[in-house]
Amino acid sequence: MTDCANQLQRYKFEVPEIVFGRGMLSQVGSCARRLGGRKIFLVSDQGLFNAGWVDQVMKSLLEARLEFVYFDQITINPRDVDIEEGAREYLRQGADVIVGLGGGSAMDAAKGIAILSANGGRIQDFEGNDRIIRPLPPMVLCPTTCGTGSDVSQFAIITDTKKRCKLTIMSRCVAPDISLTDPDTLSTLPEEYICTTATDALSHALEAYFSIASTTLTDVHAVKAIRLLKGNLVEAVREQTPDAMENLSRASLHAGMAFSNSLLGIVHALAHPIGGYYNANHGSINAVLLPEVIRYDLPVVTEKLSELAWGLGHKEACNDKEASEVVQGEVESLLEACSAPRSLRSLGVKREDLPELANRALNDACLITSPRQADAKDLLTILERAY
Amino acid sequence: MTDCANQLQRYKFEVPEIVFGRGMLSQVGSCARRLGGRKIFLVSDQGLFNAGWVDQVMKSLLEARLEFVYFDQITINPRDVDIEEGAREYLRQGADVIVGLGGGSAMDAAKGIAILSANGGRIQDFEGNDRIIRPLPPMVLCPTTCGTGSDVSQFAIITDTKKRCKLTIMSRCVAPDISLTDPDTLSTLPEEYICTTATDALSHALEAYFSIASTTLTDVHAVKAIRLLKGNLVEAVREQTPDAMENLSRASLHAGMAFSNSLLGIVHALAHPIGGYYNANHGSINAVLLPEVIRYDLPVVTEKLSELAWGLGHKEACNDKEASEVVQGEVESLLEACSAPRSLRSLGVKREDLPELANRALNDACLITSPRQADAKDLLTILERAY
Repeated sequence: MTDCANQLQRYKFEVPEIVFGRGMLSQVGSCARRLGGRKIFLVSDQGLFNAGWVDQVMKSLLEARLEFVYFDQITINPRDVDIEEGAREYLRQGADVIVGLGGGSAMDAAKGIAILSANGGRIQDFEGNDRIIRPLPPMVLCPTTCGTGSDVSQFAIITDTKKRCKLTIMSRCVAPDISLTDPDTLSTLPEEYICTTATDALSHALEAYFSIASTTLTDVHAVKAIRLLKGNLVEAVREQTPDAMENLSRASLHAGMAFSNSLLGIVHALAHPIGGYYNANHGSINAVLLPEVIRYDLPVVTEKLSELAWGLGHKEACNDKEASEVVQGEVESLLEACSAPRSLRSLGVKREDLPELANRALNDACLITSPRQADAKDLLTILERAY
Repeated sequence: MTDCANQLQRYKFEVPEIVFGRGMLSQVGSCARRLGGRKIFLVSDQGLFNAGWVDQVMKSLLEARLEFVYFDQITINPRDVDIEEGAREYLRQGADVIVGLGGGSAMDAAKGIAILSANGGRIQDFEGNDRIIRPLPPMVLCPTTCGTGSDVSQFAIITDTKKRCKLTIMSRCVAPDISLTDPDTLSTLPEEYICTTATDALSHALEAYFSIASTTLTDVHAVKAIRLLKGNLVEAVREQTPDAMENLSRASLHAGMAFSNSLLGIVHALAHPIGGYYNANHGSINAVLLPEVIRYDLPVVTEKLSELAWGLGHKEACNDKEASEVVQGEVESLLEACSAPRSLRSLGVKREDLPELANRALNDACLITSPRQADAKDLLTILERAY
């Protein structure tokens, strides 16, 4: 028995130190101090400031007798120009540790600022795999949504405002030193973001599980994320119970540990150009694409489906065909039960743009680890089915 | 739904960078160089030297243009006096990175040498939790058995030769920077060590899963280790097929990631004094104690048993009582199928020593995370049943 069908036989696995638990935002100061910080560059956004979480982090930094500078010039889908401004401010202030508090946007902005402050140049210079030369300042990243995974991942996604596209930066250096999750922060997450960020986590977990770079080390986290989402997503969306919300945090963390090491697939390869083109919500795009990409991938991942069916709550042993139906059906009904968007049209995508979007996806690094090799025609078919 | 019964709600999780795969011993040099090494202190033993693996590591170090010093004055259950000699040699030679190649003994010796070379004093000064002050030299640890987990763990176990006991050192600093597993090295592992080291991994996984400090992050690795052992242990012991052996390496790694972060329980609390007293094989002691400790623990861990039953190959849904029987039965039949030792008597333990061994176990740090609190009388009962 091998138990490792279709998986990499030589691999690396790397995750930051993880701190998890309600109330743990009070530990940000001691984490930053432990990383050698004296003047902290705190990156967050207006929504989190208004909700009081930025204050809590500032209090924790002060209690650890650390100075800090606050930077909040960031947008959803963080922009190259804001990153450049952040890096200038970091250097001007003589900061030495970066704390990012927020969703993927705030955390990816923090990563971008870390890259430019240490390496100079423009963020475009670092697009692709392993282009970062000089070591980054230490980072503590604190997620406040249920989906991004940026707090553990070796990715940063920044919007190129001139080209209207997203730059994918992949490097072990952009994983932070410490990932600190305080599930209490989810209590003020606007309701519509629960579903969209959690479906982002769902697509991370499923794409990581199907990736040709998956390993037993990533699979266990992918399946756990899927189990937690299956068990808690609907309750979280409908009732926002603290336990269900906390388990979505946990799901996001597990999914992040998986995809950071196994990388992703077609959902994300397509979501990046769509997000860059329309400035649309990343989780919503993923939710729309996911069922179609699963349908496309299923024939080539049959060996791994029975474990996944178990993760999705199917308790009886089943053969490949049954498992395939269980997976497809469970994912679709989960998305439906939490009222996720179901068409690209509803997200403002224009039909005439689909061929260009398929072409742009061909250059996305996420395509490399897709279990089924797709050409422009395949990608266009997926987009049309999801339209 | 919470899905996190009986688990820590605030926690940390930390693992080294992991490198895994056949032939990866050729990467030791580049790993050591990446950690800033110029003169490597290589710790291994005569058996691995004779098998040719030490040569392979030396070749890799030379290819990375690194000098090295070779140290092999270590025994099974590494001794305080050898650690002290190793640290003196490390300092005399002006080494700067430590590479440990071997089973738990070689790797724990490497950790002990790292502690003393950076902190001075005697190894006894560092017994217990977080007693290390100065940072250790960078370490790459390469396991060559199927069980210890020392290559990822925050533990080092050293024998105090005067007191005839084992010292348990717990500190995040003793986890190495890089854990590098090359499953090819198992091809020369003496046959009797396959079973004893793999049953060590089995006890790591089960104790980690039952630990009161377990979390979803540790559980996924514990269950995966158990699944891999269930699927491969007997084939590995009987036929030594490379695939089965490789999956035991993988099981050991998963189990190590689990117990390093959730800690252990009564099996290890008792195994440490027994090992120190009789210089007996650690895995054999664990194999004997495991069924009795499981029997003792089962009534208080019922909520977690159905997932464990699934991990042990039981595919149908089952209630608490059935799951409890499945777990007990599967573990016992697995140990029996691989001809693990079944009594303390057969390991040379003397019946009149049992009360003293139970008393010594009361002070072992592993007892703290046992799911069921045990006093000296409970421990003595377990020892008597396992006698």
